[in-house]
Amino acid sequence: MAVLLFCTVAMACAPAAHAEDGYDLWLRYPPTESARATAYRAQVSQLLAADATPTQAATRAELLRGLRGLLGVTPVPANTVTQAGAVVVGTPSSSPTIARLRLDTRRLGPEGYLIRSVAIDGHAVTVIAADADAGALYGAFHFLRLLQTGQPIAKLDLRDTPRVKLRLLDHWDDLDGHVERGYAGASIWDWHKLPDYLDPRYTDYARANASLGINGTVLNNVNSNALSLTPAYLEKAAALAGVFRPYGIRVFLSARFSAPMEIGGLKTADPLDPAVKRWWRDKADEIYRVIPDFGGFLVKANSEGQPGPQDYGRSHADGANLLADALAPHGGTVMWRAFVYSHEEPDDRAKQAYTEFVPLDGKFRGNVLVQVKNGAIDFQPREPFHPLFGAMPKTPLMMEFQITKEYLGFATHLVYLGPLYEETLKADTHAKGKDSTVAKVIDGSLDGHALTGMAGVANIGAGRNWSGSHFDQANWYVYGRLAWNPTLSSRAIAEEWVRMTFSNEEGVVAPVVDMMMGSREAAVDYMTPLGLHHLMGRSHHYGPGPWVEGGPRADWTSVYYHRANREGIGFDRTAHGSNAVAQYSPYLAREFGDLQRVPEEFLLWFHHLPWDYRTRSGRPLWDELVHRYTSGVDYVRGMRSTWSGLEGKVDAERHAQVAAFLGIQEKEAQWWRDASIAYFQTLSGRPLPAGEAAPAHTLEYYQSLEFPYAPGSGR
Amino acid sequence: MAVLLFCTVAMACAPAAHAEDGYDLWLRYPPTESARATAYRAQVSQLLAADATPTQAATRAELLRGLRGLLGVTPVPANTVTQAGAVVVGTPSSSPTIARLRLDTRRLGPEGYLIRSVAIDGHAVTVIAADADAGALYGAFHFLRLLQTGQPIAKLDLRDTPRVKLRLLDHWDDLDGHVERGYAGASIWDWHKLPDYLDPRYTDYARANASLGINGTVLNNVNSNALSLTPAYLEKAAALAGVFRPYGIRVFLSARFSAPMEIGGLKTADPLDPAVKRWWRDKADEIYRVIPDFGGFLVKANSEGQPGPQDYGRSHADGANLLADALAPHGGTVMWRAFVYSHEEPDDRAKQAYTEFVPLDGKFRGNVLVQVKNGAIDFQPREPFHPLFGAMPKTPLMMEFQITKEYLGFATHLVYLGPLYEETLKADTHAKGKDSTVAKVIDGSLDGHALTGMAGVANIGAGRNWSGSHFDQANWYVYGRLAWNPTLSSRAIAEEWVRMTFSNEEGVVAPVVDMMMGSREAAVDYMTPLGLHHLMGRSHHYGPGPWVEGGPRADWTSVYYHRANREGIGFDRTAHGSNAVAQYSPYLAREFGDLQRVPEEFLLWFHHLPWDYRTRSGRPLWDELVHRYTSGVDYVRGMRSTWSGLEGKVDAERHAQVAAFLGIQEKEAQWWRDASIAYFQTLSGRPLPAGEAAPAHTLEYYQSLEFPYAPGSGR
Repeated sequence: MAVLLFCTVAMACAPAAHAEDGYDLWLRYPPTESARATAYRAQVSQLLAADATPTQAATRAELLRGLRGLLGVTPVPANTVTQAGAVVVGTPSSSPTIARLRLDTRRLGPEGYLIRSVAIDGHAVTVIAADADAGALYGAFHFLRLLQTGQPIAKLDLRDTPRVKLRLLDHWDDLDGHVERGYAGASIWDWHKLPDYLDPRYTDYARANASLGINGTVLNNVNSNALSLTPAYLEKAAALAGVFRPYGIRVFLSARFSAPMEIGGLKTADPLDPAVKRWWRDKADEIYRVIPDFGGFLVKANSEGQPGPQDYGRSHADGANLLADALAPHGGTVMWRAFVYSHEEPDDRAKQAYTEFVPLDGKFRGNVLVQVKNGAIDFQPREPFHPLFGAMPKTPLMMEFQITKEYLGFATHLVYLGPLYEETLKADTHAKGKDSTVAKVIDGSLDGHALTGMAGVANIGAGRNWSGSHFDQANWYVYGRLAWNPTLSSRAIAEEWVRMTFSNEEGVVAPVVDMMMGSREAAVDYMTPLGLHHLMGRSHHYGPGPWVEGGPRADWTSVYYHRANREGIGFDRTAHGSNAVAQYSPYLAREFGDLQRVPEEFLLWFHHLPWDYRTRSGRPLWDELVHRYTSGVDYVRGMRSTWSGLEGKVDAERHAQVAAFLGIQEKEAQWWRDASIAYFQTLSGRPLPAGEAAPAHTLEYYQSLEFPYAPGSGR
Repeated sequence: MAVLLFCTVAMACAPAAHAEDGYDLWLRYPPTESARATAYRAQVSQLLAADATPTQAATRAELLRGLRGLLGVTPVPANTVTQAGAVVVGTPSSSPTIARLRLDTRRLGPEGYLIRSVAIDGHAVTVIAADADAGALYGAFHFLRLLQTGQPIAKLDLRDTPRVKLRLLDHWDDLDGHVERGYAGASIWDWHKLPDYLDPRYTDYARANASLGINGTVLNNVNSNALSLTPAYLEKAAALAGVFRPYGIRVFLSARFSAPMEIGGLKTADPLDPAVKRWWRDKADEIYRVIPDFGGFLVKANSEGQPGPQDYGRSHADGANLLADALAPHGGTVMWRAFVYSHEEPDDRAKQAYTEFVPLDGKFRGNVLVQVKNGAIDFQPREPFHPLFGAMPKTPLMMEFQITKEYLGFATHLVYLGPLYEETLKADTHAKGKDSTVAKVIDGSLDGHALTGMAGVANIGAGRNWSGSHFDQANWYVYGRLAWNPTLSSRAIAEEWVRMTFSNEEGVVAPVVDMMMGSREAAVDYMTPLGLHHLMGRSHHYGPGPWVEGGPRADWTSVYYHRANREGIGFDRTAHGSNAVAQYSPYLAREFGDLQRVPEEFLLWFHHLPWDYRTRSGRPLWDELVHRYTSGVDYVRGMRSTWSGLEGKVDAERHAQVAAFLGIQEKEAQWWRDASIAYFQTLSGRPLPAGEAAPAHTLEYYQSLEFPYAPGSGR
């Protein structure tokens, strides 16, 4: 108790020592408010946790670390329950105490767990039980989360198992440290010092992911470099795999389809060529020799200039199966991206992935997942769900979400992506009648697939706070929680995150959660309202560029997507237009194609309408458009005042950075609004609605702005 | 006293909260050992410090921060001395108390200070007095350093003034965040978020530099980008200048000579063209409007592909004077680099800067400094001092040292550069007879120059510990201290740094200082012993490459410099060879040219000798060469055991990283030794001396290694 007193004091009077720079993410474990802490201490008096395996040791260490931080004291390590408040963690094989309880852990599978308040020898005990070490680790993080979020822990009866098998982060990290579409600094992988130096940060990365249930990571960019598959780099990847393994995280690599030529000395990469097949089989064998639990390959082929099977007149299935056959003997998986569009001038890029992949349904090997972005264009602020979901019943489809905010304001805009993910997962494909949600496609329940997966394009970099901003950490968090269970609510997850990351004080939780929940809709409004899309600056994607035209291909311009002219604006994807609606189920095709029924947020995605078209607000389309732009900016202004109201309730260091970033966001939201209005007005020729401020500058000014060194550009 | 007790406890039992990740550099301010702390507390009972100006506020804040950390308590702010132990900081104009003392502060100049123990109204007081705010700031850091290093502070009578006027860091940072020859992560300048977001790190950067007396920073790479001079980037630079100003640090920029064409729309950059002159005058006026205390331009012209006056048949003086005239009205300075060598195949690159610049002596404007690297080749592990030092009496020469270890093992090799800097500064040019040291050329005393300067190529990046490794922080530190006073001893500075950075415990200080002091000689031995130079891997400069030949120009190869063949090895720079010795004073020309007198560390720099030449050890040259390579590796092995002996005496976090890096250093030292011996043996054809281990691999193996993504490469 003396120790406890001192340490509580410690925290109190050495705040300078513990800078709140965001490095600790949602695993800060700050001292718990004292009344609640007293109650908790009685409930964590002893800890029964084995540490015979690396995962058991990591589980035990995390519990001790978390409880020390939260409660100022740590439970007494013990082998048998001798007092009330014991916490027992493990599996029937790692813990005799748990074995004695004869819990049906088998049904929890390799990653599930249960947390239950039971009596052992007359003592009230909390049991965190699983069938395998990984499950116990996840259960321990869940138990800590209960304390972190101030939940009661006296009468627990929880069980949880992941609904998705592969829960991955995709790093678009290059070997030179550049992160494509990265806004949080350089890559956290220090390839040059690997394998000899293992940055402690790699361990903290693994802890953060394990706390969410993320169980795999693709280390390198999908625009990949064949050198990643050379012995020197495999040795480096193996060193990382060694750090991640205790946390249940497996390493995957992006594979360059032409690697057999670039590093194998072959004349071809033709997937049907025997030498090519042999090369990939030998390469897989080589990889598994150094990384026995290697997860598999992610492949971007025949997309945006990447090599692929079509270079040899073969299909995506031929390409995927080539790698699948090489990995199969080792239990590895191929994740083949469906983000493709023809090299020729396309009629509607939104239709192309569907056109290419649907005919291949059923032609992929059993260890292939087709990885599909949430929408058919490219991670826009809002897109309708990708028509491939529900359209390939014989093929397990893996979801690809983007966590890094390539199109959503980079690091400085406060945009919580939970609602975007939730909107997509809850969307009903109607593939097998009502309630055929995208979530059910992803978790395999709709079509009975066992192999399932979800990928998030990481927003992680070497910057101190990992994600480029404190609030972008919430996007990593919500992605991980939804990958574990796609049916969770993004608001509930936001609340969890705010409590763990900032404060359990209601005066902080409520306003911050509200602020977050509306932030994505605000970004849609000040960037691309009413179904508009792909209107950003060319190549770096920073700021507005609705005037972008010309260049190598039409579907890399803005005018291709907004189709605005004197008469009106919007992309006609109805039967009168590109008929992209026909790629959805008949029910949705009718809904999206019908002006009366199409959700207004998709209005201009599916329809080209006159400027004076009457929207549901009663306003003419032009007026509604301006209104949305303005309200998006207003929302940001509102977030600024909400946040300044929290000064003193949030540590000064993080409060100051968030405040500064919100200032940048307001400035840039205004820029988006003004530049977009200035441009579209030259086409609509209509006056601004009463009360609407004119753009601050001329259209020429906005068009003149250049940002050659905006971060994250592709190469 | 209660607070004090609690806080001491605090530090004691919340170490986990204060991760020793190196971010705090030598300004950690850890709790002082208790007996000494008790004594100090009585001597800092009150603090009289104004905060009417930003610099005064920074001075006061640093004292409070430092004393709180070191002593657990802070002195009571006061306006008059009412008890023993008061500390009075300021200038006659900022502090009535100091004014009353009638100290002769005038002679301290704008940056000097004195620290004196005096009696005021019967109370024992410590006075930190200066003639200007900056001096008081430097004095405060000096006072803190006394406590940090455990010095007595009861009877102080110190005064100090800088011997060099411009004490700068040169950042080779590109606008996209890449740092040329940077091994500490990306650039700390977040150009994209500037000027709106001011990372607190910018302030800590300023504090660290001010603690050393560094008073200027060149923000961008000498291989410069004209965009740095556009309004958008000047606004960003101005924001940084605003952060640095209170700390006495001025901002400088590298200027691209062809900027008038690239961003000015002119057809020429000819320094004698009236339009070009006008453009630079207007640009200077524009810069000073946004940065009133702008320091000036650093220029790399007609060197390694950079544009310059010679493109128009003009001289370096014409180019420098063009910019000097533009800056003169505002008090700005031009730093014109002498690192040049002809485009044609050169006879001896070591001679070229001298050949080009000596004839220009006296032709430069009064606000021009010619910036000369310490040696005539390029920041090698060891070079004789540059022959320009002492050879241009009418021109103030500025020293350019490299802090970042481009040729000294990048971030992972523990190489303390203090001895390298000291060796150069203490070198005697004999320009005006004995004791005409390089230090006297630099501080202006030899030729009576008032404008003086020293530049260090920064080793700073966004990595958490700033310099890529904990020990590389010492190179930033020793550079700054020597820039303030080039006559200081590198050993004394090392001891200061170890006490401030690691521990005052003798059991730590002595072994670590010894380890550091021998580390540079060890690197010379395992990389380029006996005067060998420029034998590293091509372009990225990582690892050994004595076999490097061919390519665009001979003087970018290794064979050009070692000249090894069946007969012998070394570059004959005597009268029989390139006669580079003649560029030194007659006394040194004789010494360097005479095999009996040439310092053996320069043996092969100046002489080509047969493999069986008898060295001073009595060993034949080949045997001595192998002996040196081996002893370099042995020294690293010794550092590893010294360091492992310090486990427990140094915090675990930093101890582990240093230990891991020493492991990499030993591996790479062995690599340098083995690859060099394997290569040179093919020429010497001689057996290894008895007891010398053969290289671990074949020469072909070493030659086959490739590192396309080694960090820091130029573009």
